[in-house]
Amino acid sequence: MRIVALEEFKLQRDVDYGTPEQNADVKKIVAEVKAEGDQAVLKYSKELDGVALEASQLRVTEQELKDAYLKVEPTFVQAIVSAANNIRAFHSRQKRESWMDVQQDGTILGQIIHPLQRVGVYVPGGKASYPSSVLMNVIPAQVAGVKEIVLVTPPATGGKEGIDPYILVAAAEVGVKEIYRVGGAQAIAALAYGTDSIKQVDKICGPGNIYVALAKREVYGAVDIDSIAGPSEIAVLADEHADPVYVAADLLSQAEHDEMACAILVTPSVSFATACQQEVERQLAELPRQDIARASIRDYGVIIVVDSIEAGIDVINSIAPEHFELMVEEPMQYVGKVVNAGAIFVGAYSSEPVGDYFAGPNHIIPTNGTARFSSPVDVDDFIKKSSLIYYSKEALLRDGDTIIELARREGLEGHARAIEVRLAKEGKARKEQ
Amino acid sequence: MRIVALEEFKLQRDVDYGTPEQNADVKKIVAEVKAEGDQAVLKYSKELDGVALEASQLRVTEQELKDAYLKVEPTFVQAIVSAANNIRAFHSRQKRESWMDVQQDGTILGQIIHPLQRVGVYVPGGKASYPSSVLMNVIPAQVAGVKEIVLVTPPATGGKEGIDPYILVAAAEVGVKEIYRVGGAQAIAALAYGTDSIKQVDKICGPGNIYVALAKREVYGAVDIDSIAGPSEIAVLADEHADPVYVAADLLSQAEHDEMACAILVTPSVSFATACQQEVERQLAELPRQDIARASIRDYGVIIVVDSIEAGIDVINSIAPEHFELMVEEPMQYVGKVVNAGAIFVGAYSSEPVGDYFAGPNHIIPTNGTARFSSPVDVDDFIKKSSLIYYSKEALLRDGDTIIELARREGLEGHARAIEVRLAKEGKARKEQ
Repeated sequence: MRIVALEEFKLQRDVDYGTPEQNADVKKIVAEVKAEGDQAVLKYSKELDGVALEASQLRVTEQELKDAYLKVEPTFVQAIVSAANNIRAFHSRQKRESWMDVQQDGTILGQIIHPLQRVGVYVPGGKASYPSSVLMNVIPAQVAGVKEIVLVTPPATGGKEGIDPYILVAAAEVGVKEIYRVGGAQAIAALAYGTDSIKQVDKICGPGNIYVALAKREVYGAVDIDSIAGPSEIAVLADEHADPVYVAADLLSQAEHDEMACAILVTPSVSFATACQQEVERQLAELPRQDIARASIRDYGVIIVVDSIEAGIDVINSIAPEHFELMVEEPMQYVGKVVNAGAIFVGAYSSEPVGDYFAGPNHIIPTNGTARFSSPVDVDDFIKKSSLIYYSKEALLRDGDTIIELARREGLEGHARAIEVRLAKEGKARKEQ
Repeated sequence: MRIVALEEFKLQRDVDYGTPEQNADVKKIVAEVKAEGDQAVLKYSKELDGVALEASQLRVTEQELKDAYLKVEPTFVQAIVSAANNIRAFHSRQKRESWMDVQQDGTILGQIIHPLQRVGVYVPGGKASYPSSVLMNVIPAQVAGVKEIVLVTPPATGGKEGIDPYILVAAAEVGVKEIYRVGGAQAIAALAYGTDSIKQVDKICGPGNIYVALAKREVYGAVDIDSIAGPSEIAVLADEHADPVYVAADLLSQAEHDEMACAILVTPSVSFATACQQEVERQLAELPRQDIARASIRDYGVIIVVDSIEAGIDVINSIAPEHFELMVEEPMQYVGKVVNAGAIFVGAYSSEPVGDYFAGPNHIIPTNGTARFSSPVDVDDFIKKSSLIYYSKEALLRDGDTIIELARREGLEGHARAIEVRLAKEGKARKEQ
């Protein structure tokens, strides 16, 4: 892991928008599913996932959900239940209510909150099939009040037909019963436009490979989508009071995600920097996914030595990391200065996996510097708001001329007249009284 | 305006993603501004807007802002002040606070709200240059706490050099002092990547022509953008208690926006449908922008006769209109059933222009059916949230094994070990005590 001075540091990563071939493939699949529905879905499931299905077999049966429980350990079920409880408790704090301002002139203005009606969650197959991300997508939607939540996941896991039982159990434990064995761009298109078997949704979320990501971009507008995540990142700001063993372990927990994952340590202490550097090497040698982690640390891992903790905070704000660990003496005094970070982990015991799995806040967090302007997934992602305007006659007679003035100034005479016809009629009625 | 039965009705409009040439032009302009900064901005201002500027002339001076007041009527200034007060009052209700859950085991979880730091608002030149949209973009950002708000607007208005004084006054009245005379894709690129004269922003919002829209799509990711609006829509649900004169005027106020604007009346009364149809024709004949309105009514205007008000509500929910006027007897009893609508205008005096200009709710509202999953612009669009996780030693010792179980189940050994190294050290320390 390189140690650099601040001046030498520049984080720059491009977002993967796929090859022209991948883009063309996705466009073709999406268009076919839009036009032909189930038939195209089944065709691509066979072609791309190697699984031949009838339309009637797309939906996972209740029996399969029951059987999945026989394939997982009871400790896993308990862990999912505990994590789900924490996640639900945290997200329940985010729930918002409609409100109204009732004014003395009779006018009522308000904001009405409705949950989305139907949401689709994509769950990848194979190695990146994470039960925790089922919880992190489904629970905020449930707290928002979304009535219909549907999961789609490829019909084969790691080359073998069938869905990962851990995914099915996680889904069942949070009460999701509508699950389809369909993956890739065809699954996204089915959710976006609807087929005979799979009803259209209002929003699609969940991670996936490049085909899934491109398909989500393609259907955006017909439905809402969550953001398209880049590689995962961690930035740690630590001083010599922190434990290099902890810091190194946390950096590596990020690096093992994939070769493009990014682990950054910022510290005012050169000796601490060196200690962490050595500790990373030591722990790397024992890590099962060390090939991935080593590539990540080599290409995207960096230790930045700064003049002070304050200067370190500035670096963090300029990076706007997805995950930020603050392991300095009296860390809470610096929290308010951190303006750009998706999630802030404070102190020695708030290791990133605590948040990835368990504490309650969402683990879907803006990547690639977008924490500058976006937020972790939360309940707000599954609601929409409608403005309410009930203007009284009294208020319109009072404000009508001002509204007409503004409308005429913009050259919109039709707008002005919509008010004028009312003033004419009501004003006249008033005079006649 | 056609009268149709429900079965015959199908609303379908495509989003304009520009011609291949427009897309290529925009990509080129954006790339050049990103690489060359001011130089490219000035080159395109000359080429596309016909205005030759030095970099030092990009920013509108304080003197120009003062001079603008001499060119507008005092009644306009008063109207802007009143509208701004209402808009600020409404949006202030949306402001949210950070919160923390402090738990007995020492754990603290929370959600920290920060405003975006710097926001750019695009204001079109020419005919679509609307002072009201300055207010509707700037005020929610101000309420959110955004410190730096910058306006960009083309250096020529309707072929004439110079910026519309009404825009300048609206900006000055809401306290915006940083304004640049630059438009088109070059303005969007300058805001997204920064130049020597124009500092990079975190988010770009505001309407614009197809080049502006494409440039916003192009820079999305480097900065946030607002949604890209489609043509404006109104849907009115009215029964025979409503006044056809009001309904027709409101339909036309939408139709005059542009040829692709869409005006829909839904009613359970055939005679009311006919009366409105005639009234639309009568008012059309007197409308200054009748060419536009006539084309809109011809191509996208429709009256749908339904069996009941409830059936009408279902139609509205399936359309998910940007603007929805509810003019039936005792309208409030139906408000709760309207789940898909950007803004709901209730009763005879809540004509759409009341909301477009004055009442307080935002006039930037999801178009083209996207009210199914998105919301009017509000304070939330100008904040971002950070999760806060402060886990105590006690909590980690209690939950550590569960977190490890979940991490191992996903094959992420590095995650498990980040917890394990802590349990090992702290557990041992505890035993030694």
